[in-house]
Amino acid sequence: MTKNQIEINPECPLPFSANERVTLGHGSGGQLSHQLLTELIYPYFDNPILATGHDSALLSIGNQRLAFTTDSFVVSPLFFPGGDIGKLAIYGTVNDLAMSGAKPLYLSCSLILEEGLPMNTLSTVLASMSHTAEESGIKLVTGDTKVVEKGKGDGIYINTSGIGVVAHDICIAPQQIEKGDLIILSGDIGRHGMAVMAMREGLTFDNPLNSDCAALSDPIQSLLNEGIVIHCLRDLTRGGLATALVELSESAEKTFLVEETAIPVSDAVTGACEMLGLDPCYVANEGRFIAFIPAAQAEAALTLLRNHSVSATSCIIGSVDEGNKSQVVYKTTMGSERLMQRLPGEQLPRIC
Amino acid sequence: MTKNQIEINPECPLPFSANERVTLGHGSGGQLSHQLLTELIYPYFDNPILATGHDSALLSIGNQRLAFTTDSFVVSPLFFPGGDIGKLAIYGTVNDLAMSGAKPLYLSCSLILEEGLPMNTLSTVLASMSHTAEESGIKLVTGDTKVVEKGKGDGIYINTSGIGVVAHDICIAPQQIEKGDLIILSGDIGRHGMAVMAMREGLTFDNPLNSDCAALSDPIQSLLNEGIVIHCLRDLTRGGLATALVELSESAEKTFLVEETAIPVSDAVTGACEMLGLDPCYVANEGRFIAFIPAAQAEAALTLLRNHSVSATSCIIGSVDEGNKSQVVYKTTMGSERLMQRLPGEQLPRIC
Repeated sequence: MTKNQIEINPECPLPFSANERVTLGHGSGGQLSHQLLTELIYPYFDNPILATGHDSALLSIGNQRLAFTTDSFVVSPLFFPGGDIGKLAIYGTVNDLAMSGAKPLYLSCSLILEEGLPMNTLSTVLASMSHTAEESGIKLVTGDTKVVEKGKGDGIYINTSGIGVVAHDICIAPQQIEKGDLIILSGDIGRHGMAVMAMREGLTFDNPLNSDCAALSDPIQSLLNEGIVIHCLRDLTRGGLATALVELSESAEKTFLVEETAIPVSDAVTGACEMLGLDPCYVANEGRFIAFIPAAQAEAALTLLRNHSVSATSCIIGSVDEGNKSQVVYKTTMGSERLMQRLPGEQLPRIC
Repeated sequence: MTKNQIEINPECPLPFSANERVTLGHGSGGQLSHQLLTELIYPYFDNPILATGHDSALLSIGNQRLAFTTDSFVVSPLFFPGGDIGKLAIYGTVNDLAMSGAKPLYLSCSLILEEGLPMNTLSTVLASMSHTAEESGIKLVTGDTKVVEKGKGDGIYINTSGIGVVAHDICIAPQQIEKGDLIILSGDIGRHGMAVMAMREGLTFDNPLNSDCAALSDPIQSLLNEGIVIHCLRDLTRGGLATALVELSESAEKTFLVEETAIPVSDAVTGACEMLGLDPCYVANEGRFIAFIPAAQAEAALTLLRNHSVSATSCIIGSVDEGNKSQVVYKTTMGSERLMQRLPGEQLPRIC
């Protein structure tokens, strides 16, 4: 019995050449990830819920509206300034639920451990997960543990899947984005990616570089509780701010105008990016989001967001223009304009 | 920043010695898995839902009763007689939901791909998942893809998490098991484990050895629809029939009597087990379950189960005795009695 005995679905021809292989870029969250998803994975699982391309699936079960999401975490190293793989695994799934406007309720946790992992390391990661879950108000209710041979893993990989309840009637989705909406960014960008990179490469900088990883559900629930009509939300992870904007402009079929001068970047991240030749707009974040809000409500939304420490420096970085052309027009500090693109290739593998 | 800066929860002291490491046995589903779970993992996530130790978490959201479960699949090789990792990833989660009496509805899929994996292999696995999900009546609605460097994975690891709806009022749980219940086994045991082992070791036998992997939701729904009062269900995976019986006897605090002569084992599995010195009661299955049914309804249950090809050879293998001693008394073909134990150490790593 070989794999050749399993027939490939004839309705779903391979979009790749016969000898093509998976590269690290296919996990970047950028252009190659997008291609893998849209050309290979989506065609096999064609259904309207998956097709929304949102951070969470929105489900109606009985009269209950739920959000459901999953993420696997393979970050290297396991511990980095400002966080660890356990924290990321909780925040990542909490934030995907929050971006659907759901209140996070329940979490699953599945571990893939590498033979030889010190129990002490596992215990430290579990303690971090436990603490972070409690702080985020989410309960871990089901799990699984597998072990692979030494050299077939890298310490710990963690999957978390989450369920949240959508308690309002607002539809938060790229398709709700409207001309005139203002684009709010919840804080300075690039800290998670640069903190992991600095740790991995053994770089030290004068200014401390800590990951921004944090739960984003509280500020979002504040907006909903106060009646802010949120059109769309997206947390900025792999691929950074630029990739999130490009993806949303495509899903929404809208043109966004974004001002470089309005985008906050810390001195530490600016310095590290200059040294390494990176653009902070493509560096990963784990505690930042963008929100599309009708202009009339944007000031009220900013006031609410700034009451939460995780979004205390929220600001407006752009707006939705007229027309249905999917593009992100980026006005640089020099005054020139260019179109933003998805992250090409891979910038930094295993960032989350 | 090192991991030492993250404090270990002082309320949860390490149950392992300072230098202890994860071994393959911790992923066996047997005694070492049990120890890892009860001594290290559970104490960090102490809540009543997790504490039930059931295959799925039972959740009440609004007036809706849901089952929620997760599993990661690391089977090696990816393709084996009768199945592949994609099939297992669907059936495994569908079956965990079914064992709570839930109707499986929605699935998440998270892939961890190893750099260098042929796209053709990925496509074949996705095709298998797509086909199996459709056949099982479950929708894949959300996903994630990560890529790790060559040598940090093994082709493909898949996590699936699932949500099902519990549409009846019966509580299916170890605590419902009662004195006098009969124990039904849904078919012959050991096929999945021996098929994978034969493939991995390059063994060939005269009798074909195919995995039993299959969806178990239809026969369970039949029992529920016909008003059979199911006390408990458990699918037999890692650790085999013996480990499942021991775990349930402990959770139920009951004594089970099981007859070796009543347990069906195919000639192919018997032959392979004899050659390799294995006991079929400890070999993994992926399409078999045990059901605890009141004696008065056992014949009706058998009739219903035998109408489904996946459980066509269902039979009674034992009963629940009086007393509250957690033990499984195993009457061998030779007439002697011994107590069944959990799978000690590891028998066959990466079976699912």
